[in-house]
Amino acid sequence: MTDLAGLKPKHFLWQVEGRVGVIRLNRPDRKNPLTFDSYAELRDLFRALPYAGDVDVVVFASNGGNFCSGGDVHDIIGPLVGMDMKGLLAFTRMTGDLVKAMIGCSKPVIAAVDGICVGAGAIIAMAADLRLASPEAKCAFLFTRVGLAGCDMGACAMLPRIIGQGRAAELLYTGRSMSAAEGERWGFWNALHGAEVLEAEAMALARRLAEGPCFAHGMTKTQINQEWNMGLEQAIEAEAQAQAICMQTRDFERAYRAFVAKEKPVFEGN
Amino acid sequence: MTDLAGLKPKHFLWQVEGRVGVIRLNRPDRKNPLTFDSYAELRDLFRALPYAGDVDVVVFASNGGNFCSGGDVHDIIGPLVGMDMKGLLAFTRMTGDLVKAMIGCSKPVIAAVDGICVGAGAIIAMAADLRLASPEAKCAFLFTRVGLAGCDMGACAMLPRIIGQGRAAELLYTGRSMSAAEGERWGFWNALHGAEVLEAEAMALARRLAEGPCFAHGMTKTQINQEWNMGLEQAIEAEAQAQAICMQTRDFERAYRAFVAKEKPVFEGN
Amino acid sequence: MTDLAGLKPKHFLWQVEGRVGVIRLNRPDRKNPLTFDSYAELRDLFRALPYAGDVDVVVFASNGGNFCSGGDVHDIIGPLVGMDMKGLLAFTRMTGDLVKAMIGCSKPVIAAVDGICVGAGAIIAMAADLRLASPEAKCAFLFTRVGLAGCDMGACAMLPRIIGQGRAAELLYTGRSMSAAEGERWGFWNALHGAEVLEAEAMALARRLAEGPCFAHGMTKTQINQEWNMGLEQAIEAEAQAQAICMQTRDFERAYRAFVAKEKPVFEGN
Repeated sequence: MTDLAGLKPKHFLWQVEGRVGVIRLNRPDRKNPLTFDSYAELRDLFRALPYAGDVDVVVFASNGGNFCSGGDVHDIIGPLVGMDMKGLLAFTRMTGDLVKAMIGCSKPVIAAVDGICVGAGAIIAMAADLRLASPEAKCAFLFTRVGLAGCDMGACAMLPRIIGQGRAAELLYTGRSMSAAEGERWGFWNALHGAEVLEAEAMALARRLAEGPCFAHGMTKTQINQEWNMGLEQAIEAEAQAQAICMQTRDFERAYRAFVAKEKPVFEGN
Repeated sequence: MTDLAGLKPKHFLWQVEGRVGVIRLNRPDRKNPLTFDSYAELRDLFRALPYAGDVDVVVFASNGGNFCSGGDVHDIIGPLVGMDMKGLLAFTRMTGDLVKAMIGCSKPVIAAVDGICVGAGAIIAMAADLRLASPEAKCAFLFTRVGLAGCDMGACAMLPRIIGQGRAAELLYTGRSMSAAEGERWGFWNALHGAEVLEAEAMALARRLAEGPCFAHGMTKTQINQEWNMGLEQAIEAEAQAQAICMQTRDFERAYRAFVAKEKPVFEGN
Repeated sequence: MTDLAGLKPKHFLWQVEGRVGVIRLNRPDRKNPLTFDSYAELRDLFRALPYAGDVDVVVFASNGGNFCSGGDVHDIIGPLVGMDMKGLLAFTRMTGDLVKAMIGCSKPVIAAVDGICVGAGAIIAMAADLRLASPEAKCAFLFTRVGLAGCDMGACAMLPRIIGQGRAAELLYTGRSMSAAEGERWGFWNALHGAEVLEAEAMALARRLAEGPCFAHGMTKTQINQEWNMGLEQAIEAEAQAQAICMQTRDFERAYRAFVAKEKPVFEGN
């Protein structure tokens, strides 16, 4: 296990509070666009998370009133125009690797979205496990606006499962903005909170999850991914195995002992 | 075919009214917890249903103002703590077998949920085909509260398909209670009815389904399960075959003859 | 590429306005039932669409205040009663082929539904990519009413992904009508518009999609189908490849050039 509290990323902000790691893109004057460098460094952070001993939950927060404006037009789209297929596929695979790393990191990720959340920013929010937003959140899968398809970083697979096939198709074909109210109504946002308390709410939720049982939370995350395209009966067998593993953790015993003693269990993640 | 009207289960209540079988857990003083015995006996009942000649629809009803409080802490969780892996897996497979038996029983199952509906009780409601609830229904997937993962008895596979991936993740990670109003809004409950009429409404719906066409209802249930992880084009071919089979039933002819005669069809389930 | 503007279907109305093809069933006095002939001719039209040079988007419109009343009782159900299995399967496969052709045509399809939309008509609406309706729209998957199963033309696979598993089960088991308000709330309809402006709204949306990027729209449609039952990580890789292909279109470059010049991009679909 390697601790991540001391990590000093070059291309985004990172801090560890308690057992919660907080990511924040840091170009607020430009609504926090992504660059080749920040994509890669984010991917590497999420790839390191399974081995991190000091972080149990991640909050992907906003900065300066916005979440993320997606791939920067000048820094990313410009160079992609005219790039050869080898380079293009290396780029789209790197962006996909960020999503793969997020869903494979075995720790819950909470997006706290204020303001602009578009393009790859919308994908990052979509790839989080839980999503809180402010009433000012504007989310758009605007790939179509730059001549591209809605199938970016897993959107055609993931978005329909969150908001339903019909609503996902509308957002992906038109690139239109989903208002915060729509997003809450459709199940994209788990809840809306005023911008002034949004991050505090996200941190409170994160701390609650970090109180555990973290081994079991990791199993929940693993199984949601594993069972994505399993048969239903195979998924039930897979869960029988996964839950039997969790029943041999000490956290399960701690919960039982606490219940018998009429106390609140203190989980330790093992 | 074996009739089930005479069945005398030891660990829950069972009665057959018309062609509707009604299940009711029977420890209302403790909000109807499950035990090793009732799990097994429920599994056996659902496994017998495909061969039952006298039951076409099942209502899983509440008792004493509550549906089910899940696995009993003393009768189930206590013994599981410290059990070896062989024993644990035998238990999680038995609980999974209840869900497999419910989805494989080829007859519609309607949950009528009043009050507490938590843990394995929430799973039973989730595994039903249709779900009615009272405004007092409180549903929680609270496995995380006892140190376990949300992946229990198929929850990570089924719940996202009912209420969407984001809302399912929140319930599974936090174990929080879903209010009746949320559940209706999210599509978990098909409808809410006052507690005093809930069971009557469930029985009316059950009788309506029992009027048939029951062979076709069984095919609908089979295909929803069969197509769970099929490709879309393969699902369309599978439905072409399944529906062609239904077109050779006499119920299909009965419906046509009734339509021509401007009468209401009387289905017989063959 | 073969232009479709000159097509003269015998069993439904067809016109091309701009780059939008408009289909309209044409037996308004009987609420536009389908016949063996119109099924087959619709299938052939959608099969021709991928090769059509002059049509980028399809609107499936209503006629005389109704969308479609499904398979005609006299023209279709009568002959099916008593047909042998070879004939029945040929029929159910033909109807399934219409859905396969719709999802495989690589161009967005918009349903504009006023009034009655039932049986195979509800399936056609479901198989469209986007769905607009009037407040008078009445949609019912009423196969069960004629003694058949809900598994018709892909309904058990597609409907749960649009409105959720629980709501889909209710519609498929009971055959009950879904009101326009329910359909909007559940995500079946993307929006409701007064009957007097419904078609104009559908055409405006269609023209907006036809403005492109049409090659990318086709890729979005292809991937939504392709990823139907892929693993999530495989879907992400599939999208990396699909989007890299789109990044080599001239439309992607056109969007970038327009952005730099602070102009609106003019897409050409290549």
